[in-house]
Amino acid sequence: MLEMPVQNKSLRELERLTNRRKAVWEHLLATNALLTTVQRGEVTKKLYAIYMLQTYHYTLHNSRNQALVGVRAIEENGQYLKYCFEHASEEVGHEQMAIKDVVSLGISREHLEIPDPLPETEIFIAYVYWISATGNPVRRLGYSFWAESAYDFVNPLIEKAREMLGLKKSQMTFLVSHAMIDEDHAKDVMEMLRKVCRTEKDWEDVERVMETTLSLAGNMFEAIYREHQQLVEGKPSPYSYLNRLL
Amino acid sequence: MLEMPVQNKSLRELERLTNRRKAVWEHLLATNALLTTVQRGEVTKKLYAIYMLQTYHYTLHNSRNQALVGVRAIEENGQYLKYCFEHASEEVGHEQMAIKDVVSLGISREHLEIPDPLPETEIFIAYVYWISATGNPVRRLGYSFWAESAYDFVNPLIEKAREMLGLKKSQMTFLVSHAMIDEDHAKDVMEMLRKVCRTEKDWEDVERVMETTLSLAGNMFEAIYREHQQLVEGKPSPYSYLNRLL
Amino acid sequence: MLEMPVQNKSLRELERLTNRRKAVWEHLLATNALLTTVQRGEVTKKLYAIYMLQTYHYTLHNSRNQALVGVRAIEENGQYLKYCFEHASEEVGHEQMAIKDVVSLGISREHLEIPDPLPETEIFIAYVYWISATGNPVRRLGYSFWAESAYDFVNPLIEKAREMLGLKKSQMTFLVSHAMIDEDHAKDVMEMLRKVCRTEKDWEDVERVMETTLSLAGNMFEAIYREHQQLVEGKPSPYSYLNRLL
Amino acid sequence: MLEMPVQNKSLRELERLTNRRKAVWEHLLATNALLTTVQRGEVTKKLYAIYMLQTYHYTLHNSRNQALVGVRAIEENGQYLKYCFEHASEEVGHEQMAIKDVVSLGISREHLEIPDPLPETEIFIAYVYWISATGNPVRRLGYSFWAESAYDFVNPLIEKAREMLGLKKSQMTFLVSHAMIDEDHAKDVMEMLRKVCRTEKDWEDVERVMETTLSLAGNMFEAIYREHQQLVEGKPSPYSYLNRLL
Repeated sequence: MLEMPVQNKSLRELERLTNRRKAVWEHLLATNALLTTVQRGEVTKKLYAIYMLQTYHYTLHNSRNQALVGVRAIEENGQYLKYCFEHASEEVGHEQMAIKDVVSLGISREHLEIPDPLPETEIFIAYVYWISATGNPVRRLGYSFWAESAYDFVNPLIEKAREMLGLKKSQMTFLVSHAMIDEDHAKDVMEMLRKVCRTEKDWEDVERVMETTLSLAGNMFEAIYREHQQLVEGKPSPYSYLNRLL
Repeated sequence: MLEMPVQNKSLRELERLTNRRKAVWEHLLATNALLTTVQRGEVTKKLYAIYMLQTYHYTLHNSRNQALVGVRAIEENGQYLKYCFEHASEEVGHEQMAIKDVVSLGISREHLEIPDPLPETEIFIAYVYWISATGNPVRRLGYSFWAESAYDFVNPLIEKAREMLGLKKSQMTFLVSHAMIDEDHAKDVMEMLRKVCRTEKDWEDVERVMETTLSLAGNMFEAIYREHQQLVEGKPSPYSYLNRLL
Repeated sequence: MLEMPVQNKSLRELERLTNRRKAVWEHLLATNALLTTVQRGEVTKKLYAIYMLQTYHYTLHNSRNQALVGVRAIEENGQYLKYCFEHASEEVGHEQMAIKDVVSLGISREHLEIPDPLPETEIFIAYVYWISATGNPVRRLGYSFWAESAYDFVNPLIEKAREMLGLKKSQMTFLVSHAMIDEDHAKDVMEMLRKVCRTEKDWEDVERVMETTLSLAGNMFEAIYREHQQLVEGKPSPYSYLNRLL
Repeated sequence: MLEMPVQNKSLRELERLTNRRKAVWEHLLATNALLTTVQRGEVTKKLYAIYMLQTYHYTLHNSRNQALVGVRAIEENGQYLKYCFEHASEEVGHEQMAIKDVVSLGISREHLEIPDPLPETEIFIAYVYWISATGNPVRRLGYSFWAESAYDFVNPLIEKAREMLGLKKSQMTFLVSHAMIDEDHAKDVMEMLRKVCRTEKDWEDVERVMETTLSLAGNMFEAIYREHQQLVEGKPSPYSYLNRLL
């Protein structure tokens, strides 16, 4: 008799999505080799540098693939397109913060080498482009949904890392400044989700991309951990130059 | 002995570009079938409707191809990328103004048909995508350079059309509002040109795109004029439905 | 009572297309500055070189944009996709013939400069990409329909040019060999048109692309003629190096 | 004193690549949940159907992303481009074999549902597009290098599956016919690798893509196994319709 108003439906879906995000993060925080290592305080400058160099690689593409959604989407009211381009513009150049933060560790720009992304980083990049370039255009919001609010979950890890590495907040521009920028972005994402998700399929597509991208990010974290192990064990690695510099 | 400072060089190039733009516009205003017709006050609702429907078609792509420059450009300082995405976001949805203005002529939305773009309109769209997607990324500024300041040249024509058609300013949202929005945009374009054009080749590429896009727009105007002639002469045209409605 | 069988319908459409192609060619042959000049036997090595360098530019893209149709088309039976990729593979490297033919005029490869395409050449390239990348995928056949059978119309011009320039057939690899290769291709195009054009809109889209690309090729020819005039009159041109070499 | 001739170098690299491929396959055959299950003869029609539907999904893209390499590569001698387009043309329509094989299990085409690809299938597709569209164009050969010779490793599994499912060879068109087609393709890939890999970086890029794509295929196999488990355990799955039909 009483139909659930649309408004309530989207609130309910958003809540479900939020719960699911929490569950995936909690799983990652409990099991991911990199994340558990950081929680135990076993952070080295080398580990942080490898992490920041992967961050550089995928961040370089974030504004581009965000804009790509708007370039290819067929969207009538234009609101989502506007969001895509505006958000893209706000992400421009953030990869430079990652470089700056590696330099802050004590590596001069001349000595800084940026090896190709790790395979897991490239897989992450490839998938984000794919979901930006094809399929349901709203689904890229599933990536933003966790990425723009990651700090709720990883702030303790950032704090732990900062302490162990003896860095000031001003030396961790990528992580610290994102924690603040992203608070607004996270609200925008939720608002946009409520506006553009009209069908159950929309919400499913968003959830799937949220889970898949977060899981691929987890794989990237694992790969960073393994690459660091390579360095520690003196095995060949494109990052072994860090052994000399840090 | 005295080297010309970079600042002066870019001012000089900008001046040259400005003069060239003026010359091309003056040539168009003196020779283009559509533009001379409007100047003589021979504007009909049908002519204006065909023009607005072409405007709808190419405007629909402006934000997309503008963003595309940022998606594919390899640009280090990020300033130009930011400009591309911001400008793209400001252009979103402008094609709806064109539709609204056709409706203002007295065609209800249900009866409004939007035929495929005229070949000359599609050529214009194709070329703007091409220069956005390939070659020197700065060259798309050559399109913006004349498009964002077109009102300096066509305002008398807009005024003449408004008078002949008996329209209020509020019924010509595309043309009238753009005249205002674009004043700021035109300044942005000039500032951006001075920042991103570093070599003589950059300026040449921009000039070439300015001339080619303006000339293709001229061809589109001619095609609009010819299509209107088809209507007047009762020849077959995808726009002949306008004969019934206006 | 009697329905026109599909077979007959497509034959009739093909005939109409063939007649239209003939009409456009005849118009071009009668009015185009380059084509009438060649018919009068006023061919110079410089004119031919500028023509061949434009041919190089657009031919470089032909296999690519042909393949692009297959990359983006959603086609169920696969026959058209197969055609696109096979035809693309046959077009690979043809631009090298154009270069070889310029060298045959007596310009060594070291001295050969390839300026940017003329604007009209770039417009032609841009439009062919556009119709390959967007809209009805079958419409690119409208380009192939005239391009693969051009020799029926331009053979007398090729013969005239060969005579005036004192070249052997083996020195005109692009034009002479294409005349032969393309005979088969032209049959393939007709067969494919009959298979993939199912609706009236399909045939219209093909016809429109045939007319538009042929008309843009005509514009390119005119531009080649004008550029040659620039050389003759000693005006600045990116091709003025030909004055020294030929 | 004696420099290793190029010929020998490429033979050595090819051998190294071949050994590496063998090692990765042996690891997969020993540890992958799907592959070990099949080896134990625990194949069901449902498992095979889910596998074939994933095969359908990624095979649909193989000709397209193969052609894409040629569309975007800047390659001077054209041999590799020709290979890309020819190989693309040979892959067209192979996804239809996968559908046919599912139908052979006893599902009529009307009842056949094709759910979205599993996330791991989509990640695989996304990565193959990414390496086809960006970076070193030769690297896609790393995918072909294992994919076109997979039958050397999986033939016993195909044979086992065929036996368990009671199928004739003619009912397994995708797997059986590929085993034959691909023998030639595998030779082509090796020949092409020797022609286009000129630097150590080329060989590294190829190896990396070989390892990453094979590992992502392994992940897809694991996901197929897990999805089948869902069915068996009666948990919700987009493939649960197979419970009714098989």
